[in-house]
Amino acid sequence: MHGPLNRNHLMFIPVMTEEAFDVIVVGSCMTDLVSQSARLPKEGETIHGHNFFIGFGGKGANQCIQAARLGAKTAMVAKVGNDSFGDSYTQNFKDNGVYTGFVGRTSEAATGVASIIVNDAGENAIVIVAGANMKLNKEELQDALPVISSAKVLICQLEISPQMSLRALRMAQENKVTTIFNPAPAIPDLDPDFYRLSDVFCCNESEAELLTGSSVNNVEEARCATRELLRRGCGAVIITLGAQGCVVLEAPESTSKHVPTSPVSAVDTTGAGDSFIGALAYYVAHYPAMRLEEVARRAGQVAAVSVQSMGTQSSYPHKRDLGAELF
Amino acid sequence: MHGPLNRNHLMFIPVMTEEAFDVIVVGSCMTDLVSQSARLPKEGETIHGHNFFIGFGGKGANQCIQAARLGAKTAMVAKVGNDSFGDSYTQNFKDNGVYTGFVGRTSEAATGVASIIVNDAGENAIVIVAGANMKLNKEELQDALPVISSAKVLICQLEISPQMSLRALRMAQENKVTTIFNPAPAIPDLDPDFYRLSDVFCCNESEAELLTGSSVNNVEEARCATRELLRRGCGAVIITLGAQGCVVLEAPESTSKHVPTSPVSAVDTTGAGDSFIGALAYYVAHYPAMRLEEVARRAGQVAAVSVQSMGTQSSYPHKRDLGAELF
Repeated sequence: MHGPLNRNHLMFIPVMTEEAFDVIVVGSCMTDLVSQSARLPKEGETIHGHNFFIGFGGKGANQCIQAARLGAKTAMVAKVGNDSFGDSYTQNFKDNGVYTGFVGRTSEAATGVASIIVNDAGENAIVIVAGANMKLNKEELQDALPVISSAKVLICQLEISPQMSLRALRMAQENKVTTIFNPAPAIPDLDPDFYRLSDVFCCNESEAELLTGSSVNNVEEARCATRELLRRGCGAVIITLGAQGCVVLEAPESTSKHVPTSPVSAVDTTGAGDSFIGALAYYVAHYPAMRLEEVARRAGQVAAVSVQSMGTQSSYPHKRDLGAELF
Repeated sequence: MHGPLNRNHLMFIPVMTEEAFDVIVVGSCMTDLVSQSARLPKEGETIHGHNFFIGFGGKGANQCIQAARLGAKTAMVAKVGNDSFGDSYTQNFKDNGVYTGFVGRTSEAATGVASIIVNDAGENAIVIVAGANMKLNKEELQDALPVISSAKVLICQLEISPQMSLRALRMAQENKVTTIFNPAPAIPDLDPDFYRLSDVFCCNESEAELLTGSSVNNVEEARCATRELLRRGCGAVIITLGAQGCVVLEAPESTSKHVPTSPVSAVDTTGAGDSFIGALAYYVAHYPAMRLEEVARRAGQVAAVSVQSMGTQSSYPHKRDLGAELF
């Protein structure tokens, strides 16, 4: 029996290698329901807005779509409802070349939604109902193990059950898959295992502030925060600072690098952080020997393109929209 | 030529009579996007809600559905978008037996939506984007003239262009169709023709307050307001007072009648006013000789059933759910 089993095993590996994904995202899908009105309504008030549109959002899906648009072979592990928003979202992944074999459906909850009211000053008020995202369970993660274990990079966030994110990161680490963890939306009592399971721990200023308990308003404060977060066990830390670029600190180095971005005139920064992380995953997967500082510089360039047009996923550039120097 | 044309004309009338509708509603369709969360978000804030659902709303459609559920032969004259919400709404009318031949579609605007955030205290903040409702135009009303002119009752509100509501009421009045006008949502500078075109002018306390400029907090104040509104040219005025029932004043009488409701324990009053008006139209169409006071009493009984379960249209009773004394 030994021979034939070995042969099967040998045959299995090349098949998996051929089908391996560059980037797997275990995360959220949200339908954005966006109403635009002059101002935001108060309690008990009904006001008239001037525009309404439906968009595709959710941090996990956004990051996956950005990686796919740059040319990464991607798969999404997620859960949507048995409803028309779930149908539309699955189609959106297909339209972007994302593998949907692990996008499950549930009748127990509706597809995640974000009701967003934007006033004329561009300020918004958002209510997220995670719905089906919270129904992604360990059996479904287990089903995805073959693709997770053979992927180059795995990304997780905190818009699904934190226990599922932890489990996915653990599966990836055990299989030597590079992990990128984005602790968003930030929770104050983050399980310490998240740090130890993150090859790259990437967050923005406000998330870094919540996690470290210290203010992160400028490059110097971000440098301190990267040191604190690295100390908790991450392989590397990136803190994004909007127009100020980002700060990168990689173990075992002790000096962080500030990576500025080129100045652009931003029209809509929604989803820019997710564009950065999706791009980060693409570069890590495609250029494994590239220094993280350079990876972050290029991801910053991609995100800078995304802020120059309206919308979330609709503003994410494709490889064909970007200069050859980024590839 | 005279003979054959006359014959055609004579043949046409019975056909139309046979197909005549009891109640035509020229009004709005809105998809309700309801998020439930502990509290309402502030500007710039993202919070997590615990439930989300999609409902069918819009004052015009609500009133039409209630009339249909009581057994009225109804048609809706309205406009929805060329989108999935428009598909669903058209199906909802069909499921309720409402004729949809005059529910138009447009690509110029999305189906009307109401983004509703409800906090745990039951208070809500609503942003309405009327969208396709504002695209209903005079050509489409003209197409509906044969059914409007042969109907028993026409209902209008103010969630479509006020000029279209005025035009529909005028078409009805010219054809001796009984008009019910619901000035909601109230606008302070209501065109005075609305009063003259209303056989029954039906509003709630706050609408009466805005229109008369006097407070309407109790039965006595409501009596004064009905007199003021009747003076402006309506055939009759009904002011609804929630749990206190309503006040009815019909020309040429000078004494208003207070019609109380039976006490019920309300769980959700959303859409109760529309249930009342839809029921009013049903009773006016089916019992033309019934006194308006009795019509209002029965409509109040129907609306009282609607507040005893959750939801808007989903809480509206069918004829089979109601006691025989109401028919």
